[in-house]
Amino acid sequence: MTAEKTSLTSSPISDQLEELHRTFSSIGEGAVATYIPELAKANPNWFGICIVTTNGGIYEAGDSRQEFTIQSISKPFVYGLALEDHGRSEVLKKVGVEPTGDAFNSISLDPVTGTPRNPMINAGAIASTGLIEGRTPQVRINRILEMFGRYVGRDLKVDAGVYASESATGHRNRAIGFMLRNFNVLEQDPMPIVETYFQQCSILGHCRDLATMAATLANRGVNPLTGVQAIRGEYVESVLGVMGTCGMYDYAGEWLYDVGMPAKSGVAGGVIAVLPGQLGIGVFSPPLDAKGNSVRGVRVCSALSRRWDLHLFNRPGIGKSVVRLRLNAAEFNSSRVRSLPENEILREHGRRIQVFQLQGNLVFATAEYVVRELTECTGLECLILDFRYVVSINESAAHLFHDILCNLHAAGCVVLFTGLGNNSPLRRLIRTRLGDRSEDLFRTFEDLDGALQWCEDRLLARVMPSIPDTSIAVTRYELLNGLSREEMAIVQKFFERRNFAVGEVIIQAGEPAHELFLLTRGVVSVFLPLDDGRRKRLATFSPGMAFGEMAMIDHAPRSATIIADTDVSCDLLTIGKLTALGAVHPKIKIHILENLSLDLCRKLRKANREIAQLV
Amino acid sequence: MTAEKTSLTSSPISDQLEELHRTFSSIGEGAVATYIPELAKANPNWFGICIVTTNGGIYEAGDSRQEFTIQSISKPFVYGLALEDHGRSEVLKKVGVEPTGDAFNSISLDPVTGTPRNPMINAGAIASTGLIEGRTPQVRINRILEMFGRYVGRDLKVDAGVYASESATGHRNRAIGFMLRNFNVLEQDPMPIVETYFQQCSILGHCRDLATMAATLANRGVNPLTGVQAIRGEYVESVLGVMGTCGMYDYAGEWLYDVGMPAKSGVAGGVIAVLPGQLGIGVFSPPLDAKGNSVRGVRVCSALSRRWDLHLFNRPGIGKSVVRLRLNAAEFNSSRVRSLPENEILREHGRRIQVFQLQGNLVFATAEYVVRELTECTGLECLILDFRYVVSINESAAHLFHDILCNLHAAGCVVLFTGLGNNSPLRRLIRTRLGDRSEDLFRTFEDLDGALQWCEDRLLARVMPSIPDTSIAVTRYELLNGLSREEMAIVQKFFERRNFAVGEVIIQAGEPAHELFLLTRGVVSVFLPLDDGRRKRLATFSPGMAFGEMAMIDHAPRSATIIADTDVSCDLLTIGKLTALGAVHPKIKIHILENLSLDLCRKLRKANREIAQLV
Repeated sequence: MTAEKTSLTSSPISDQLEELHRTFSSIGEGAVATYIPELAKANPNWFGICIVTTNGGIYEAGDSRQEFTIQSISKPFVYGLALEDHGRSEVLKKVGVEPTGDAFNSISLDPVTGTPRNPMINAGAIASTGLIEGRTPQVRINRILEMFGRYVGRDLKVDAGVYASESATGHRNRAIGFMLRNFNVLEQDPMPIVETYFQQCSILGHCRDLATMAATLANRGVNPLTGVQAIRGEYVESVLGVMGTCGMYDYAGEWLYDVGMPAKSGVAGGVIAVLPGQLGIGVFSPPLDAKGNSVRGVRVCSALSRRWDLHLFNRPGIGKSVVRLRLNAAEFNSSRVRSLPENEILREHGRRIQVFQLQGNLVFATAEYVVRELTECTGLECLILDFRYVVSINESAAHLFHDILCNLHAAGCVVLFTGLGNNSPLRRLIRTRLGDRSEDLFRTFEDLDGALQWCEDRLLARVMPSIPDTSIAVTRYELLNGLSREEMAIVQKFFERRNFAVGEVIIQAGEPAHELFLLTRGVVSVFLPLDDGRRKRLATFSPGMAFGEMAMIDHAPRSATIIADTDVSCDLLTIGKLTALGAVHPKIKIHILENLSLDLCRKLRKANREIAQLV
Repeated sequence: MTAEKTSLTSSPISDQLEELHRTFSSIGEGAVATYIPELAKANPNWFGICIVTTNGGIYEAGDSRQEFTIQSISKPFVYGLALEDHGRSEVLKKVGVEPTGDAFNSISLDPVTGTPRNPMINAGAIASTGLIEGRTPQVRINRILEMFGRYVGRDLKVDAGVYASESATGHRNRAIGFMLRNFNVLEQDPMPIVETYFQQCSILGHCRDLATMAATLANRGVNPLTGVQAIRGEYVESVLGVMGTCGMYDYAGEWLYDVGMPAKSGVAGGVIAVLPGQLGIGVFSPPLDAKGNSVRGVRVCSALSRRWDLHLFNRPGIGKSVVRLRLNAAEFNSSRVRSLPENEILREHGRRIQVFQLQGNLVFATAEYVVRELTECTGLECLILDFRYVVSINESAAHLFHDILCNLHAAGCVVLFTGLGNNSPLRRLIRTRLGDRSEDLFRTFEDLDGALQWCEDRLLARVMPSIPDTSIAVTRYELLNGLSREEMAIVQKFFERRNFAVGEVIIQAGEPAHELFLLTRGVVSVFLPLDDGRRKRLATFSPGMAFGEMAMIDHAPRSATIIADTDVSCDLLTIGKLTALGAVHPKIKIHILENLSLDLCRKLRKANREIAQLV
């Protein structure tokens, strides 16, 4: 694999591939195809291997950039294009999907309907080529070349010499073309269609192209190296379906048993194999066995399958790791700073608010686990589903979530989403099904913290009386807790009252910190400015609380911006005034510092408990 | 699904299954098998569906507990037992794996060798039964029944009536038996083997049994409801391989194309389908189509596959979520309490220590991503691999990790493991390959915190001079930082010196907190007692630091136990003394409280930064 930085070590995967290449280089069996003179020119020693993963890993060994003609490997891809052009049911009327157990060049038409048994034999492949849309043969081969360009991420072209050679000798395929015309499987002149078929077989590619094509099929049609959609995801299973049962000619059963991956070979010596969701393999080595498959190609795929446990049917259970974190508001809270009584209420009733942070791919089986956990939740009032770490949601998972969420909503549970992209299948489904109501039913928050705060506020509002929008008395400042009436009166003289209008900046990030603020009236929020110009809410304070005290203590510049959420009144205590207070009334300052330490101490304990839950 | 608690809502999966059951109940096509009188007695309206997931979810609809004989569904399971008894290569000598494209009762022996083409046709199934070990026919059928018992989690038995009926009419199968004897595929008297075959076909089970059998195959041979291993994991791919290409008789190609799951049907109306890693499906409905498959069984599997996107070849890319957390010691630290200069060194050089917390199933493709990230790490000195959230590691992933870790070790990087069970394949592989050296090469820690602390200590020891094992001066207490020499002398009078021997308990969890401790000499650790009698290290302190101050501030009982890691000397400051100090020297107490707040403030900022990284 190409390392761009200086690495500490080489990859064991590259090492293993090199070793495999060395081992299988010595195989002398098989013979280069000679049915056309151009193919007979191939060097029997050419030997390349390439692996491309759906995560974008690339591993190459040997002659992985030696070009050759893809031949029959074109068949499943052109079949895929035919599916895109006409849909599955129309295509199935023209070409079947049953393995024949016959050799690659057998005609194998259904005795009754005349349709080819499957698209991997020549008859079925020619029928597929006949389904490619385009006014002229040139338009059709161009569409085929553009398709392969999407699969491999570079422009491919037809080898003129091989094409001329194929065309000069391809009488059997012309016979097949006319048989297909006879049964009306082809509805136009078969001659130009057969020519296009010769051209698609003569497209030049190398091993890395093969592996990228295979990896694109493994990645639901998206080229993992370029991000380009080469074929609509819904047709990938059909392309792999015919490769799975018919891709290796009459060797299909043993192949699926032994190697366990859908595959396709070509007479020039190419082989591709696909492990859905995971990776694609491309091998090139011209000598063929009696069944027309590359000898080293078959051996390499078999060895890789065994060594790397790639067999499609050998899968570990999906487990429960679709739930990355499961939290509740009794144990984990938003960054909104709460008063002591508020924190107590959250500790007591917070289990009614549950957070499921999901991750990875949501398909039926992973969604099933989440849905089951949700149906088994007791005493649930607010549910937050956090999709921040979700890679994909397929349609069936989206439906399950839609259904369970509607059920929960109907049962009185409030459902919130975070980290769910606007274009996720779930969001689209909900909009389609529920229309304008959708945003009311399922609130969406940018981040988990905001959603959690909303749920906590809701819970607290139901349990506690709301704070009136009037100034609170100095006696209710948490920082002055425990001082006598006389002491409070003294402290008050050191305060400076300030008012801020809604939206006004109270503290600007980056400025030096000279004071702490005691909130008398209104609500303020702490924001972190983000690189993209937006800002992230970090905390919210309500009357009675102090803010800005940490920067004052550690003399750091203000780390965040604080803005008035409502009209706000504060009492300011500057460093100078606090020092003056200490000089005249040391006992009062000691008391304030003890309260401050107590507050910090509680917050630190809570933060440590939360960290323990997260790692 | 059976809900044990009162749930807020029903499961949409159960609802969908019920709906599907209702929809397909109205299908009137097909005919109940009549080739033996016992089967003809079946009620054509019986109709059950069951889904079991590898996570243990169970969903049932209709007559899911109606018993019937499993018939040909026994074939792949008995084939699996033959593989366990003889290994793959011996079994392959007796039975092939190529689909025939022929009907279920075709004899289909290879014209040259006489071996049956595959184990799903009667000839291949009888040959498989002939491979079951056991001195007598009774022992053999008992072993078969025990095997099914492991698959379904209950004792199954043979229906005597059906068996008698099968035996009375099974002349064609006896003919097959003698043909197999003729070719020496069966090496003993075929008559008792054919009887055992009739018995295995006459085993009674219900839909839920079928789904559990299928889910066991989906779960690499482990029954997901009981945890019992029903078949060795290595043979599951072979059982599913023959089901994949030959399980639905001459409907196999279309089935894999349309439904996309290995499957098997029986003439009594049962069908199983397996989605490896995810789930098993069992359907029961007696009326059969012309190919011998249950009409409703085929329709239900096809509908479920389409509705729930279950097609084997339709898989999303695995993505990168195998790495749950990626941390480095510049941004995230162990709970060991560090001095200011230590914290600065960690901030500056901590990127040399990297943590990869992995999760889910480690197979080739997920391991590949981790291995690639590791080869691309620059400046790596210590690597911690945390396996706490890993569900499974297969052999190929274990090999990749072994190789990359040996490479990293050779390049001078220290590798540590946490959360890796003693029996994990990786641990076993390392022991086998490296023997006694293994524990030296790759240190194992119980938890991430301990490993991270070890790496930090190592980094700090290389950058900072070590702390000598002598008492430090009072002037170096962080809490007294900034006091004048005279003030320090005053404070010292309020201290009480205490010594503790190594291992001695300094603070006991649960006791009231009356003092804070200033560490003069030695190292102490904070432990949380666990329910199982063990204890978890929470933090470690070194000379100059204060401990036990939080409980003193918030008057909570001691939350943890503190133990002397070495011989230790401390200065104690009791609440009473601190109050007395404040009364006489308020300026000094103010200074101490300010230092205390500063320390708490820094810890809180760090904890909040860490939380932001983890959620």
